[in-house]
Parts: sequence; structure tokens; C-alpha cells
Amino acid sequence: MSNIQTPIPEKTIERLSEYRRTLIACSRRGITHVFSHILAGMHGITAVQVRRDLMLIGFSSDTKKGYDVRVLIDFIDSILYSENTMKVAVIGMGHLGQAITKYFNSKELNIRITAAFDIDEAKIGQTIMDIPCYDVKDFEEVVSNNDISIVIISLPSSLAAQYAVPIINAGIKGVLNFTSVPLNFPQGIVVENFDITTILEKVAYFVKAAEENNNQ
Amino acid sequence: MSNIQTPIPEKTIERLSEYRRTLIACSRRGITHVFSHILAGMHGITAVQVRRDLMLIGFSSDTKKGYDVRVLIDFIDSILYSENTMKVAVIGMGHLGQAITKYFNSKELNIRITAAFDIDEAKIGQTIMDIPCYDVKDFEEVVSNNDISIVIISLPSSLAAQYAVPIINAGIKGVLNFTSVPLNFPQGIVVENFDITTILEKVAYFVKAAEENNNQ
Repeated sequence: MSNIQTPIPEKTIERLSEYRRTLIACSRRGITHVFSHILAGMHGITAVQVRRDLMLIGFSSDTKKGYDVRVLIDFIDSILYSENTMKVAVIGMGHLGQAITKYFNSKELNIRITAAFDIDEAKIGQTIMDIPCYDVKDFEEVVSNNDISIVIISLPSSLAAQYAVPIINAGIKGVLNFTSVPLNFPQGIVVENFDITTILEKVAYFVKAAEENNNQ
Repeated sequence: MSNIQTPIPEKTIERLSEYRRTLIACSRRGITHVFSHILAGMHGITAVQVRRDLMLIGFSSDTKKGYDVRVLIDFIDSILYSENTMKVAVIGMGHLGQAITKYFNSKELNIRITAAFDIDEAKIGQTIMDIPCYDVKDFEEVVSNNDISIVIISLPSSLAAQYAVPIINAGIKGVLNFTSVPLNFPQGIVVENFDITTILEKVAYFVKAAEENNNQ
């Protein structure tokens, strides 16, 4: 376990998560050591950035051969993960909920999606993408019985707001909201509002701006 | 059309996209005017931020009654959108590709997903979520015949890298990459690498950090 007391900046956490996946891919291909500039190149960033991130979490490297891949993976794990598997629920088991569950649970992670919730009678009581799908009415009970601490909201946007109170009551500590309705929660609950529309509109805007620039 | 010459900051573009959706929802409920602090409250930000964003795009308000909702929607449209509909293709029509297409095309936007690509014989030649699904081998031809400028990559991560060259050759200007493999493109192509795993790991980290803080 690490001795870091203060939370690490969000962007560093994102990069650590990305380094980790790259390192696992390296390890699978039999690569035992990697230099900071190689790791940087694979992520389109500078070696200085990589070294700064690793310094921030207190990792120091063998500079002659580069970073020991396995040791660095374990070190990042100790920063990112709890010792126990963190359990996640998905509310809304439509295409998006299923895609996220399949994608996420196929990875080598210490975070698992263990329960789904839906309002569709055809889904309730079924096993979908290898996890049980419950009636959303039973949300609070299932969450507390199964030690779930994070919820992913992949419902139609119009339904999202009604689940804020059950989420708070159930003692959920982290929310990943994929609807276009930004949800506000009391302090102490970590929320990441992530709207796919916003991201696509942003890409479209910068494409448009570049085209207009070219036409001038 | 606006006369803005320099691109607006990314975060402002994201917020404009979000304001726009809130304003459309207001308009549907018959609300004709909205004050900056009301709009701010709906997004969990300050009124100063809202006013700063709108000042940046050159929008000035009627301060007595607040912003005219319809006028502000049209103004944001002129900033975010081309006069012509921007066309988007999806590579990978699995659960994620289908979820994105359904979700995105159900919205009132000037950006449309008009074509899908897959390697699955069962999908090629079919209409899925109301759009045609083509063989990914025909990517360059379909893109140029249909005036598509943006691509969404919703493939398994292991397949993503092989589509970088076809995307460049096809003249695509914007890429939204949902795989966990960060893709680098030449300058002139806008890329947004968006990995769901990274976001979930980030939420998990901050949940863990908060718990450790409480236990001290």
C-alpha cells in the first residue's frame, strides 16, 4: 500500500490508469522493462510528463534499464485500487449498460460490475452479460446487501433525475453519469457527469473551426 | 453566423453544448426567458461562469427578463454547428456503437450519424438503428461518397489501431475514439480519446481516497 495522504490530481489518475493498461499489454508481450520516453510515446505525451506523474506517486525507477514493468504495474495498482474488489452497479441495462458491462468486466481490474438494474420486466430476474439484473425498485436493498459503492447511470436522460435520492439513500460513494442531465449530489459523493453528446459536439465544433480557418 | 475567428476553449464548448440542451428542455416546457443564475444552478456552476462563456461568444442579454431562450439557442447553434448537417460514421456496430447511434440520433442536433461499419457478416448490408451498416473494407469509398467528416470508433480495443490509416486516407477530420488504445493522428485531424475504463477508474480512486481519509 502507498503512503500518499492527499488525493492525486484527476489528470494524473487518468494517465496512471492508461499507463497501467499499456504496461499490462507490454508485460503480455514479454517486455520486462520500459523507458519513460517509450511509455510517453505510446500515449502521445512527453517523457517529462510520465516522470512527473510517477514522481508524484513516489515511484522511482532503475534508470539504466528503464522502469520494471511488473513492479510499476503493482505500484500503480496500490495507488488506484483498494485491497478489496470495488463493486459497481449499472442502472439501465440497455445497449449502453450492456456495452459498458461487457467491456469493463473483460478487463484485468480490481473493480467489477456485479449488479444491473432495469425497469423492463423482460430483463428483471435475468442474467445479462454474466451479471444479475434486478428490479430498480430493489436498488437500495441490493446495493447494501452486496457492498456496492459505485453506480453507473446508463438510463434514458429523462429518467435519470428520479434515481438521485435512491442513490444517496443506498450509501453510494461514486457516480458515473452517462445521461445528458447533470446530476448534483451532496458532498462526499464523487460524481463524474459524462455526456457523449457533449464530446461529439466538441469534436464537431473543432472540425468546423478548422475548416473555417482553412477557407479564410 | 458568428464572426468569431479563434477557436473557443474546449471547456466553454462543452458547457455551450450543455446549456443548449437545457435551454431546449426549458423551451419545450414553455419557458421563454432564463436568468444566468438559474441556468448556472441547473449545471452546478456559478452565474459568473455562464456570463463569461456567453460573453466569450459575443452574446449579450436582456438583463431585466434574463436571456431569451429561443434567441440564445439559435446563437449557440451558430457557434457550434455548420450550416450543413455534419455527418458522422460509426466503426463497430456492437452494443456500444448501437447505443451511441440510438442515443445521438434521437436528439435535435445538426450532427447526424449516417453510416455504420462492421466486420460481422450478419450486420453488413443491414439497417441497424435506422442507418445502413457497411463492410469496413468499403470505409474509404463510403465516407467520400457520403460526405462524412467525423468517425466514432467503438470497436474492441485490439482492433482499433488498424483503422488509423483508412481514417486518414478517407479524409476524416474528427475522431472520437472509445477504445482504450490512444490513437495519434496527423495535425489537422481532431482527436478525442475517450476511454470509459479511465473514467470509472478515476471515480473508483476518488471514492477510495475519500474512504481512506475518513478512516484516519
